[in-house]
Amino acid sequence: MAKEKKLVEAITSMEDDFAQWYTDVVKKAELCAYSSLKGCMILLPAGYAIWENIQKELDTRFKETCVENVYMPMFIQESLLQKEKDHVEGFAPEVAWVTQGGAETLQERLVVRPTSETLFCDLYANIVQSYRDLPKLYNQWCSVVRWEKTTRPFLRTTEFLWQEGHTAHATEEEAEERTIKMLNVYADFCEQVLAIPMIKGRKTEKEKFAGANSTYTIEALMHDGKALQSGTSHNFGDGFAKAFGIQYTDKDNKLQYVHQTSWGMSTRIIGAIIMVHGDNSGLVLPPRIAPTQVMIIPIMQHKEGVLEKAIELKETLSKKFRVKLDDSDKKPGWKFSEQEMRGIPIRIELGPKDIEANQAILVRRDTREKLTVSFDELEIKLATLLDNIQADMLERARIHRDQHTYTAKTKEEFKDIIAKKPGFVKAMWCKEQSCELKIKEETGATSRCMPFEQEKISDTCIYCGKPAKTMVYWGKAY
Amino acid sequence: MAKEKKLVEAITSMEDDFAQWYTDVVKKAELCAYSSLKGCMILLPAGYAIWENIQKELDTRFKETCVENVYMPMFIQESLLQKEKDHVEGFAPEVAWVTQGGAETLQERLVVRPTSETLFCDLYANIVQSYRDLPKLYNQWCSVVRWEKTTRPFLRTTEFLWQEGHTAHATEEEAEERTIKMLNVYADFCEQVLAIPMIKGRKTEKEKFAGANSTYTIEALMHDGKALQSGTSHNFGDGFAKAFGIQYTDKDNKLQYVHQTSWGMSTRIIGAIIMVHGDNSGLVLPPRIAPTQVMIIPIMQHKEGVLEKAIELKETLSKKFRVKLDDSDKKPGWKFSEQEMRGIPIRIELGPKDIEANQAILVRRDTREKLTVSFDELEIKLATLLDNIQADMLERARIHRDQHTYTAKTKEEFKDIIAKKPGFVKAMWCKEQSCELKIKEETGATSRCMPFEQEKISDTCIYCGKPAKTMVYWGKAY
Repeated sequence: MAKEKKLVEAITSMEDDFAQWYTDVVKKAELCAYSSLKGCMILLPAGYAIWENIQKELDTRFKETCVENVYMPMFIQESLLQKEKDHVEGFAPEVAWVTQGGAETLQERLVVRPTSETLFCDLYANIVQSYRDLPKLYNQWCSVVRWEKTTRPFLRTTEFLWQEGHTAHATEEEAEERTIKMLNVYADFCEQVLAIPMIKGRKTEKEKFAGANSTYTIEALMHDGKALQSGTSHNFGDGFAKAFGIQYTDKDNKLQYVHQTSWGMSTRIIGAIIMVHGDNSGLVLPPRIAPTQVMIIPIMQHKEGVLEKAIELKETLSKKFRVKLDDSDKKPGWKFSEQEMRGIPIRIELGPKDIEANQAILVRRDTREKLTVSFDELEIKLATLLDNIQADMLERARIHRDQHTYTAKTKEEFKDIIAKKPGFVKAMWCKEQSCELKIKEETGATSRCMPFEQEKISDTCIYCGKPAKTMVYWGKAY
Repeated sequence: MAKEKKLVEAITSMEDDFAQWYTDVVKKAELCAYSSLKGCMILLPAGYAIWENIQKELDTRFKETCVENVYMPMFIQESLLQKEKDHVEGFAPEVAWVTQGGAETLQERLVVRPTSETLFCDLYANIVQSYRDLPKLYNQWCSVVRWEKTTRPFLRTTEFLWQEGHTAHATEEEAEERTIKMLNVYADFCEQVLAIPMIKGRKTEKEKFAGANSTYTIEALMHDGKALQSGTSHNFGDGFAKAFGIQYTDKDNKLQYVHQTSWGMSTRIIGAIIMVHGDNSGLVLPPRIAPTQVMIIPIMQHKEGVLEKAIELKETLSKKFRVKLDDSDKKPGWKFSEQEMRGIPIRIELGPKDIEANQAILVRRDTREKLTVSFDELEIKLATLLDNIQADMLERARIHRDQHTYTAKTKEEFKDIIAKKPGFVKAMWCKEQSCELKIKEETGATSRCMPFEQEKISDTCIYCGKPAKTMVYWGKAY
């Protein structure tokens, strides 16, 4: 058994060192490799396949709301980036600059896109003339670059993959409606497919996107009690439209500025999947996003009929599920560890005695629960089991989050919770930025969002004691 | 009718000026827009949707051959690019250089990837140890940058989208087999899905990829008689493996170098679709790749029941086909022109009289042929018609290519054909580069490939008269 255990032992336990556990899982589940270039990661097949499934699911949902995909250049001229004041201030310090093309030094430096608001605005200024041209509901799947000093796989890297939606509308109301609609698309996707419950809310002025009127966010709680911003949706009002001159003629033949939104979700969400569901044996993937849902592992595969039956099962089950067969020459125990490390939701153990008894053993990755199932019922039981795993994972994540969500009525109570109990803290705020800054300074917690579902925890701001205007979710964040 | 005609009249006829016709189609069919940055194009929804379909089709075919997708960084350190001598010489003159990240000047310049051989080699050197780790069959979908002086949408742009497959194998034979396998995947895809027949063959030493032992290519003939290299597959032998130290321990415990391949197809192929199938009314898309296969255009849609029936048809037919309904307030003639410009394979015309007669009019985009079809048979007829269009388009493209493929036995004959008859010229060659260079110099034609299907046109090289070693397809190329 010594050899089989190696793989598991190589992971630091999450209770000992959560950060190291995370890095270990990313590496041992072969999701990422580091490249020679600091801060840039390589998405290996196991990691990229998760992203492909995320793309498929989100893209279908986007298209159901009439979004169309496009592709914009990866370079932005410096002068274009500078057109919107807040936006350039937010991004210029962290971009990569191209200064030379071929043998020539460029007359104007180019930025490798950190986000593409300016490019979409430049396009919309050219192609939007009349109210008939609206709305424009464009999205692109691409990579972006932000020059980060400290990086962690998926959570913060110099280059990362994402989608960025950019829309232009005739009215303020329509833009706001789209902003909220896309936030809901993200939240529903995370709950239904990734089994991660989300807090939906609005960012404070301090935390909003550079150039936005308002930023909405979905926030999740990781297993270690830290928060992760998982997707954002911004309402730009007509700020960018004025900076870029995006105007249309309305039905009364009057010139109007468009109202814009943007919204994005990135490979960062894979970090959330790892940190919400993973355990000390590695990754645990929700069935709906798992690239492989079922791993068949033959026992004593040299015995006559075992491998044949395994192959037959694989072929039958592949019509309904994403199935793999591990017929390598490794020992079964080692194969179990690998399947667990990679987070594959169900393994089917299949030995000569099982075959004789017309049955197989099903093992759930999330609970380790074992079920003996007759071959005749395998398909139906697998479908039910995958549904149950999906539902149970969401439920466990919700319970964990709720158990780590606290309320604070006073500054002292707040500080005490932040210091001792990792999690969300719900507390009242006066909406003054000075209080928000002080809270961060003194506790390390940031405002995650002003949730749509408001509660009245107390009457006054926990920091200054003045009348409270809103409840805020606070927490330490990735 | 004046207004309806505008759209069509706006296209230059291909007989008058093929290059201008091409640019007009790209613009009027709304496939691309130019960005503010010279040489970078924007893929608009109609253009990007074609690329999405190409991706889906190719990706499925790749995965059937066990290829896995990954994502590599977009930046390459200068020192990494320089490891393979021929490779860096081939690409260094045409790359974009990043010299600054955030506020700091980089100690080592970075190249925005023009292709990713060096990154994959760097990865394989780290992750390949034993024969058990082989083969590695990785692919990525991404964009690459080559600093081009003169650009044309799809055909030559500073940034373009593509896929690049990179594989590592234990043996020379296996690498060669993979190289040919992927060339066949490309050729079959182009014939079956894009309705473009391909000449498969090997590139000459002069035309092969920088760093490859051998480059295989598929070559298509455009409507104007120019050739387009449409996909390439390279066998690297162990050249890169030696430069990057990619070694594995074989079954006898001896250290061996891996043998590598790479293969790619890009958005350039959309240029081929336009130039093979298009006509003076615009784009003509093969049904299997068309984002919209059927456009329903109601006639007198204000009359009771017309729009209702159109919506009903759209819903029914959408279960089997990619269908859109144009219910805008434009005139039918204008809608016809738009549908034709966009290359939608079939339009259904539906007026009050048709509805009364329980029928609709089907019009083929490729031949303009009209069919009256009863509603009861619509589904079956559409399926057949789409299949027929697909087959006829391939057949027409094949006939056009064959009619524009000539043979030359002497230099004089060759020069005469190249000067007067645009197309492929099959002619014999001695395999000396000096003859190849002279032919190019004197005629402007380049060697497209040494085809797998060889013929003996004559005994001697058309240029030097020495004994011929191979037949070559020559032509002027994009």
